[in-house]
Amino acid sequence: MGLNDLGKIDEVIHGRMRLGIMVYLADAEAADFTELKTVLEATQGNLSVHIKKLEEAGYVAVAKSFVNNKPLTRVSITPAGRKAFAAYLEALGGLIGRTP
Amino acid sequence: MGLNDLGKIDEVIHGRMRLGIMVYLADAEAADFTELKTVLEATQGNLSVHIKKLEEAGYVAVAKSFVNNKPLTRVSITPAGRKAFAAYLEALGGLIGRTP
Repeated sequence: MGLNDLGKIDEVIHGRMRLGIMVYLADAEAADFTELKTVLEATQGNLSVHIKKLEEAGYVAVAKSFVNNKPLTRVSITPAGRKAFAAYLEALGGLIGRTP
Repeated sequence: MGLNDLGKIDEVIHGRMRLGIMVYLADAEAADFTELKTVLEATQGNLSVHIKKLEEAGYVAVAKSFVNNKPLTRVSITPAGRKAFAAYLEALGGLIGRTP
């Protein structure tokens, strides 16, 4: 039964906004905070909360710098994040794949 | 970009436990409460909360009866539930399908 894959669904990634962040970074490798905010149609606060959660899990890394005296926040997927995302996709595929 | 599918992810279905309920019912059509509790490894309270949310959305129907003087709760997927689940799978596939 596909349902034993349910337990393997990583809740850190499964949250809709965090899933969007991981999908984007799995493809783009890294992105600025403002770029993520635009493509995910997220608010500043909401996006920060979810990036923080992914960072605490070690799935993304956050680099803060100044460009032309302006603060720049860049978010990138980590090797651990790639691994966890691949496992998540597999668990989800196992769970959903079995639906008629 | 697959990310415009992110907005189409139905949060009522996306919650991990509710997703498990929908996957099971999409296959089994209907199930007793205790059956769902076992296959989803859920607690009574947790499962009740999530069935209630799906019921309020019109995605499942709950029928209560007595068998041999014992209360029986039977949960079944509704046509609206099937439709929403199919749309959910498509949105998720669109979101995830595009990952390299």
